[in-house]
Amino acid sequence: MVRWEPGARERLQAAALELYAARGFEQTTAADVAESVGLTERTFFRYFADKREVLFDGQDRFEQAFLDGVAAAADGASAIDTVTAALRHASAFFPDERRPWSRQRQAVISANPGLQERELLKMAALAEAVAGALRERGLVEPQASLAAHACVTVFGVAFRQWIAVGEERSLPDIARGVLDELRVLTGSAP
Amino acid sequence: MVRWEPGARERLQAAALELYAARGFEQTTAADVAESVGLTERTFFRYFADKREVLFDGQDRFEQAFLDGVAAAADGASAIDTVTAALRHASAFFPDERRPWSRQRQAVISANPGLQERELLKMAALAEAVAGALRERGLVEPQASLAAHACVTVFGVAFRQWIAVGEERSLPDIARGVLDELRVLTGSAP
Repeated sequence: MVRWEPGARERLQAAALELYAARGFEQTTAADVAESVGLTERTFFRYFADKREVLFDGQDRFEQAFLDGVAAAADGASAIDTVTAALRHASAFFPDERRPWSRQRQAVISANPGLQERELLKMAALAEAVAGALRERGLVEPQASLAAHACVTVFGVAFRQWIAVGEERSLPDIARGVLDELRVLTGSAP
Repeated sequence: MVRWEPGARERLQAAALELYAARGFEQTTAADVAESVGLTERTFFRYFADKREVLFDGQDRFEQAFLDGVAAAADGASAIDTVTAALRHASAFFPDERRPWSRQRQAVISANPGLQERELLKMAALAEAVAGALRERGLVEPQASLAAHACVTVFGVAFRQWIAVGEERSLPDIARGVLDELRVLTGSAP
Protein backbone atom coordinates (compact mmCIF):
# COMPACT_ATOMS: atom_id res chain seq x y z
CA MET A 1 0.00 0.00 0.00
CA VAL A 2 3.05 2.25 0.21
CA ARG A 3 3.26 4.47 -2.84
CA TRP A 4 6.70 5.28 -4.17
CA GLU A 5 7.23 9.00 -4.68
CA PRO A 6 9.96 9.74 -7.21
CA GLY A 7 12.46 12.21 -5.77
CA ALA A 8 10.50 12.48 -2.54
CA ARG A 9 13.58 12.24 -0.34
CA GLU A 10 15.33 15.09 -2.13
CA ARG A 11 12.20 17.25 -2.21
CA LEU A 12 11.66 16.69 1.51
CA GLN A 13 15.28 17.55 2.30
CA ALA A 14 15.23 20.75 0.28
CA ALA A 15 11.89 21.80 1.75
CA ALA A 16 12.97 20.99 5.31
CA LEU A 17 16.11 23.06 5.04
CA GLU A 18 14.18 26.01 3.63
CA LEU A 19 11.62 25.87 6.41
CA TYR A 20 14.17 25.31 9.19
CA ALA A 21 16.11 28.31 7.94
CA ALA A 22 13.04 30.53 7.52
CA ARG A 23 11.00 29.61 10.61
CA GLY A 24 13.52 27.93 12.87
CA PHE A 25 14.09 24.23 13.43
CA GLU A 26 11.97 24.03 16.60
CA GLN A 27 9.08 25.84 14.98
CA THR A 28 8.86 23.46 12.01
CA THR A 29 7.11 20.10 12.15
CA ALA A 30 7.57 17.09 9.91
CA ALA A 31 4.01 17.67 8.72
CA ASP A 32 4.88 21.26 7.73
CA VAL A 33 7.77 19.97 5.65
CA ALA A 34 5.74 17.27 3.96
CA GLU A 35 2.80 19.57 3.21
CA SER A 36 5.03 22.21 1.68
CA VAL A 37 5.90 19.78 -1.11
CA GLY A 38 2.48 18.16 -1.37
CA LEU A 39 3.36 15.02 0.56
CA THR A 40 1.94 13.54 3.75
CA GLU A 41 3.57 13.37 7.16
CA ARG A 42 3.45 9.60 6.75
CA THR A 43 5.58 9.86 3.62
CA PHE A 44 8.03 12.03 5.53
CA PHE A 45 8.49 9.34 8.16
CA ARG A 46 9.00 6.72 5.48
CA TYR A 47 12.24 8.50 4.59
CA PHE A 48 13.40 10.03 7.86
CA ALA A 49 13.11 8.83 11.45
CA ASP A 50 12.50 12.39 12.63
CA LYS A 51 12.94 15.98 11.50
CA ARG A 52 16.51 16.05 12.80
CA GLU A 53 17.50 13.15 10.58
CA VAL A 54 16.92 15.28 7.50
CA LEU A 55 20.03 17.21 8.51
CA PHE A 56 22.14 14.20 9.47
CA ASP A 57 21.16 11.83 6.72
CA GLY A 58 24.26 10.58 4.96
CA GLN A 59 26.50 10.39 8.02
CA ASP A 60 27.40 6.78 7.21
CA ARG A 61 28.56 7.73 3.73
CA PHE A 62 30.41 10.74 5.13
CA GLU A 63 32.29 8.57 7.63
CA GLN A 64 32.88 5.94 4.98
CA ALA A 65 34.55 8.54 2.75
CA PHE A 66 37.20 9.05 5.43
CA LEU A 67 37.63 5.31 5.95
CA ASP A 68 37.91 4.73 2.19
CA GLY A 69 40.62 7.39 2.12
CA VAL A 70 42.50 5.65 4.92
CA ALA A 71 42.18 2.35 3.06
CA ALA A 72 43.38 3.96 -0.18
CA ALA A 73 46.67 5.11 1.35
CA ALA A 74 49.65 3.05 0.22
CA ASP A 75 50.82 0.20 2.44
CA GLY A 76 53.37 1.58 4.82
CA ALA A 77 52.28 5.19 4.22
CA SER A 78 53.15 7.47 7.11
CA ALA A 79 50.41 8.60 9.47
CA ILE A 80 50.34 12.06 7.94
CA ASP A 81 50.15 10.68 4.39
CA THR A 82 47.27 8.47 5.45
CA VAL A 83 45.51 11.46 7.00
CA THR A 84 46.13 13.39 3.79
CA ALA A 85 44.50 10.61 1.78
CA ALA A 86 41.52 10.52 4.13
CA LEU A 87 41.07 14.29 3.83
CA ARG A 88 41.31 14.13 0.05
CA HIS A 89 38.65 11.43 -0.15
CA ALA A 90 36.33 13.05 2.36
CA SER A 91 36.56 16.53 0.93
CA ALA A 92 35.80 15.22 -2.55
CA PHE A 93 32.50 14.12 -0.99
CA PHE A 94 31.55 17.84 -1.04
CA PRO A 95 31.68 19.15 -4.61
CA ASP A 96 31.04 22.85 -5.08
CA GLU A 97 27.43 22.32 -6.08
CA ARG A 98 26.77 21.14 -2.52
CA ARG A 99 28.14 24.36 -1.04
CA PRO A 100 24.80 26.27 -0.86
CA TRP A 101 23.10 23.31 0.85
CA SER A 102 26.00 22.87 3.28
CA ARG A 103 26.07 26.57 4.06
CA GLN A 104 22.35 26.69 4.81
CA ARG A 105 22.51 23.47 6.81
CA GLN A 106 25.29 24.93 8.97
CA ALA A 107 23.29 28.09 9.58
CA VAL A 108 20.35 25.99 10.80
CA ILE A 109 22.62 23.93 13.06
CA SER A 110 24.41 26.99 14.46
CA ALA A 111 21.06 28.44 15.51
CA ASN A 112 20.09 25.40 17.60
CA PRO A 113 22.09 24.09 20.60
CA GLY A 114 20.64 20.58 20.33
CA LEU A 115 21.66 20.32 16.69
CA GLN A 116 25.10 21.70 17.51
CA GLU A 117 25.54 18.96 20.09
CA ARG A 118 24.48 16.33 17.60
CA GLU A 119 27.01 17.69 15.09
CA LEU A 120 29.80 17.66 17.70
CA LEU A 121 28.99 14.09 18.65
CA LYS A 122 29.01 13.13 14.98
CA MET A 123 32.50 14.55 14.58
CA ALA A 124 33.68 12.82 17.77
CA ALA A 125 32.35 9.50 16.48
CA LEU A 126 34.14 10.17 13.20
CA ALA A 127 37.45 10.71 15.01
CA GLU A 128 36.98 7.43 16.86
CA ALA A 129 36.23 5.59 13.62
CA VAL A 130 39.30 7.04 11.89
CA ALA A 131 41.50 6.21 14.91
CA GLY A 132 40.22 2.62 14.78
CA ALA A 133 41.01 2.37 11.06
CA LEU A 134 44.50 3.72 11.68
CA ARG A 135 45.12 1.20 14.45
CA GLU A 136 44.02 -1.56 12.11
CA ARG A 137 46.72 -0.39 9.72
CA GLY A 138 49.24 -0.90 12.48
CA LEU A 139 49.53 2.59 13.91
CA VAL A 140 50.04 2.54 17.66
CA GLU A 141 48.73 4.94 20.28
CA PRO A 142 49.02 7.81 20.80
CA GLN A 143 49.76 8.33 17.08
CA ALA A 144 46.48 6.81 15.92
CA SER A 145 44.36 9.10 18.10
CA LEU A 146 46.48 12.15 17.40
CA ALA A 147 46.36 11.55 13.65
CA ALA A 148 42.61 10.89 13.69
CA HIS A 149 41.86 14.03 15.69
CA ALA A 150 44.19 16.07 13.50
CA CYS A 151 42.30 14.74 10.48
CA VAL A 152 38.90 15.66 11.87
CA THR A 153 40.09 19.05 13.12
CA VAL A 154 41.59 19.94 9.73
CA PHE A 155 38.42 18.82 8.02
CA GLY A 156 36.22 20.84 10.37
CA VAL A 157 38.29 24.01 10.03
CA ALA A 158 38.45 23.63 6.25
CA PHE A 159 34.74 22.96 6.01
CA ARG A 160 33.89 26.12 7.95
CA GLN A 161 36.08 28.09 5.58
CA TRP A 162 34.54 26.40 2.53
CA ILE A 163 31.05 27.60 3.48
CA ALA A 164 32.19 31.10 4.46
CA VAL A 165 30.56 33.92 2.51
CA GLY A 166 32.51 34.72 -0.63
CA GLU A 167 34.77 31.66 -0.45
CA GLU A 168 35.27 30.15 -3.89
CA ARG A 169 38.08 27.63 -3.48
CA SER A 170 37.14 23.95 -3.48
CA LEU A 171 37.04 22.02 -0.23
CA PRO A 172 39.97 19.75 -1.23
CA ASP A 173 42.09 22.86 -1.95
CA ILE A 174 41.17 24.47 1.36
CA ALA A 175 41.79 21.23 3.30
CA ARG A 176 45.29 20.97 1.80
CA GLY A 177 45.99 24.52 2.90
CA VAL A 178 44.73 23.92 6.43
CA LEU A 179 46.86 20.78 6.72
CA ASP A 180 49.86 22.90 5.73
CA GLU A 181 48.87 25.39 8.43
CA LEU A 182 48.92 22.56 10.97
CA ARG A 183 52.48 21.79 9.89
CA VAL A 184 53.39 25.46 10.33
CA LEU A 185 51.76 25.45 13.76
CA THR A 186 53.77 22.49 15.01
CA GLY A 187 56.95 23.88 13.56
CA SER A 188 57.58 21.61 10.61
CA ALA A 189 57.22 24.31 7.97
CA PRO A 190 58.67 27.82 8.00
CA MET B 1 17.79 27.18 58.70
CA VAL B 2 20.43 25.67 56.45
CA ARG B 3 23.02 23.82 58.47
CA TRP B 4 26.59 23.95 57.23
CA GLU B 5 28.16 20.50 56.98
CA PRO B 6 31.95 20.64 57.13
CA GLY B 7 33.46 18.68 54.24
CA ALA B 8 30.03 17.70 52.97
CA ARG B 9 30.87 18.47 49.36
CA GLU B 10 33.94 16.24 49.39
CA ARG B 11 32.17 13.45 51.25
CA LEU B 12 29.29 13.54 48.78
CA GLN B 13 31.66 13.47 45.82
CA ALA B 14 33.63 10.53 47.13
CA ALA B 15 30.47 8.63 48.04
CA ALA B 16 28.84 9.36 44.68
CA LEU B 17 31.80 8.07 42.72
CA GLU B 18 31.94 4.89 44.81
CA LEU B 19 28.25 4.22 44.30
CA TYR B 20 28.23 5.10 40.59
CA ALA B 21 31.15 2.72 40.09
CA ALA B 22 29.67 -0.08 42.18
CA ARG B 23 25.99 0.09 41.16
CA GLY B 24 26.03 2.08 37.97
CA PHE B 25 25.24 5.76 37.48
CA GLU B 26 21.64 5.20 36.41
CA GLN B 27 20.94 2.92 39.34
CA THR B 28 22.11 5.43 41.95
CA THR B 29 19.96 8.29 43.22
CA ALA B 30 21.04 11.50 44.89
CA ALA B 31 19.28 10.23 48.02
CA ASP B 32 21.39 7.03 47.95
CA VAL B 33 24.53 9.11 47.80
CA ALA B 34 23.49 11.41 50.62
CA GLU B 35 22.32 8.57 52.87
CA SER B 36 25.54 6.65 52.42
CA VAL B 37 27.40 9.44 54.20
CA GLY B 38 24.66 10.25 56.70
CA LEU B 39 23.36 13.34 54.93
CA THR B 40 19.96 14.18 53.49
CA GLU B 41 18.95 14.44 49.84
CA ARG B 42 18.28 18.11 50.53
CA THR B 43 21.87 18.60 51.58
CA PHE B 44 22.99 16.89 48.38
CA PHE B 45 21.05 19.38 46.29
CA ARG B 46 22.52 22.27 48.24
CA TYR B 47 25.89 21.35 46.72
CA PHE B 48 25.01 19.84 43.34
CA ALA B 49 22.26 20.65 40.86
CA ASP B 50 21.87 16.95 40.04
CA LYS B 51 23.72 13.67 40.33
CA ARG B 52 25.57 14.31 37.08
CA GLU B 53 27.05 17.55 38.39
CA VAL B 54 29.04 15.60 40.95
CA LEU B 55 31.16 14.34 38.06
CA PHE B 56 31.41 17.67 36.21
CA ASP B 57 31.88 19.98 39.14
CA GLY B 58 35.03 22.03 38.64
CA GLN B 59 34.68 22.45 34.87
CA ASP B 60 35.05 26.22 35.21
CA ARG B 61 38.33 25.86 37.09
CA PHE B 62 39.49 23.25 34.58
CA GLU B 63 38.80 25.57 31.65
CA GLN B 64 40.32 28.49 33.54
CA ALA B 65 43.55 26.53 33.98
CA PHE B 66 43.93 26.41 30.18
CA LEU B 67 43.08 30.09 29.82
CA ASP B 68 45.54 31.03 32.59
CA GLY B 69 48.19 29.08 30.72
CA VAL B 70 47.41 30.96 27.52
CA ALA B 71 47.59 34.25 29.43
CA ALA B 72 50.89 33.23 31.02
CA ALA B 73 52.63 32.72 27.67
CA ALA B 74 55.07 35.51 26.82
CA ASP B 75 53.87 38.34 24.60
CA GLY B 76 54.57 37.40 21.04
CA ALA B 77 54.99 33.70 21.90
CA SER B 78 54.34 31.42 18.93
CA ALA B 79 51.05 29.52 18.76
CA ILE B 80 52.76 26.27 19.70
CA ASP B 81 54.55 27.87 22.66
CA THR B 82 51.24 29.26 23.84
CA VAL B 83 49.65 25.82 23.53
CA THR B 84 52.57 24.37 25.45
CA ALA B 85 52.00 26.88 28.25
CA ALA B 86 48.29 26.07 28.34
CA LEU B 87 49.02 22.35 28.55
CA ARG B 88 51.54 22.88 31.31
CA HIS B 89 49.09 24.91 33.37
CA ALA B 90 46.15 22.61 32.77
CA SER B 91 48.02 19.40 33.44
CA ALA B 92 49.37 20.80 36.71
CA PHE B 93 45.69 20.98 37.68
CA PHE B 94 45.87 17.16 38.02
CA PRO B 95 48.53 16.23 40.58
CA ASP B 96 49.19 12.52 41.04
CA GLU B 97 47.03 12.31 44.16
CA ARG B 98 44.02 13.01 41.93
CA ARG B 99 44.83 10.07 39.66
CA PRO B 100 42.69 7.44 41.49
CA TRP B 101 39.67 9.79 41.47
CA SER B 102 40.17 10.67 37.81
CA ARG B 103 40.58 7.02 36.88
CA GLN B 104 37.39 5.98 38.63
CA ARG B 105 35.49 8.98 37.27
CA GLN B 106 36.51 8.02 33.74
CA ALA B 107 35.37 4.44 34.29
CA VAL B 108 31.94 5.70 35.37
CA ILE B 109 31.71 8.01 32.37
CA SER B 110 32.83 5.34 29.91
CA ALA B 111 30.03 3.08 31.10
CA ASN B 112 27.30 5.63 30.34
CA PRO B 113 26.59 7.10 26.89
CA GLY B 114 24.87 10.20 28.29
CA LEU B 115 27.88 11.00 30.47
CA GLN B 116 30.22 10.38 27.54
CA GLU B 117 28.29 12.92 25.50
CA ARG B 118 28.47 15.44 28.29
CA GLU B 119 32.24 14.90 28.51
CA LEU B 120 32.66 15.34 24.74
CA LEU B 121 30.65 18.54 24.80
CA LYS B 122 32.75 19.79 27.69
CA MET B 123 35.92 19.23 25.68
CA ALA B 124 34.38 20.91 22.62
CA ALA B 125 33.46 23.94 24.73
CA LEU B 126 37.01 23.97 26.06
CA ALA B 127 38.44 24.04 22.53
CA GLU B 128 36.17 26.96 21.67
CA ALA B 129 37.25 28.85 24.79
CA VAL B 130 40.93 28.29 24.06
CA ALA B 131 40.46 29.33 20.42
CA GLY B 132 38.78 32.53 21.61
CA ALA B 133 41.65 33.28 23.99
CA LEU B 134 44.16 32.72 21.19
CA ARG B 135 42.27 35.06 18.88
CA GLU B 136 42.32 37.69 21.62
CA ARG B 137 46.09 37.35 21.66
CA GLY B 138 46.09 38.20 17.96
CA LEU B 139 46.21 34.75 16.40
CA VAL B 140 44.21 34.60 13.19
CA GLU B 141 42.13 31.78 11.81
CA PRO B 142 42.68 29.00 10.99
CA GLN B 143 45.69 28.99 13.35
CA ALA B 144 43.65 29.81 16.44
CA SER B 145 41.21 26.92 15.90
CA LEU B 146 43.93 24.51 14.85
CA ALA B 147 46.07 25.38 17.86
CA ALA B 148 43.12 25.16 20.26
CA HIS B 149 42.02 21.77 18.93
CA ALA B 150 45.61 20.51 18.98
CA CYS B 151 45.81 21.64 22.61
CA VAL B 152 42.62 19.84 23.62
CA THR B 153 43.49 16.71 21.62
CA VAL B 154 46.95 16.49 23.20
CA PHE B 155 45.43 16.99 26.63
CA GLY B 156 42.77 14.32 26.04
CA VAL B 157 45.25 11.75 24.72
CA ALA B 158 47.67 12.49 27.56
CA PHE B 159 44.92 12.31 30.16
CA ARG B 160 43.79 8.89 28.95
CA GLN B 161 47.36 7.67 29.23
CA TRP B 162 47.78 9.22 32.68
CA ILE B 163 44.86 7.20 34.06
CA ALA B 164 45.88 3.97 32.30
CA VAL B 165 46.54 1.04 34.61
CA GLY B 166 50.16 0.96 35.72
CA GLU B 167 51.02 4.44 34.40
CA GLU B 168 53.22 6.29 36.87
CA ARG B 169 54.47 9.35 34.97
CA SER B 170 52.94 12.69 35.87
CA LEU B 171 50.37 14.29 33.58
CA PRO B 172 52.66 17.23 32.68
CA ASP B 173 55.38 14.75 31.64
CA ILE B 174 52.97 12.70 29.55
CA ALA B 175 51.47 15.80 27.93
CA ARG B 176 54.94 16.99 26.90
CA GLY B 177 55.58 13.62 25.30
CA VAL B 178 52.26 13.62 23.43
CA LEU B 179 52.94 17.11 22.11
CA ASP B 180 56.27 15.83 20.81
CA GLU B 181 54.39 12.97 19.14
CA LEU B 182 52.19 15.50 17.39
CA ARG B 183 55.34 17.14 16.04
CA VAL B 184 56.55 13.77 14.81
CA LEU B 185 53.17 13.14 13.21
CA THR B 186 53.18 16.35 11.22
CA GLY B 187 56.78 15.85 10.21
CA SER B 188 58.61 18.44 12.27
CA ALA B 189 60.62 15.95 14.30
CA PRO B 190 62.49 12.84 13.11
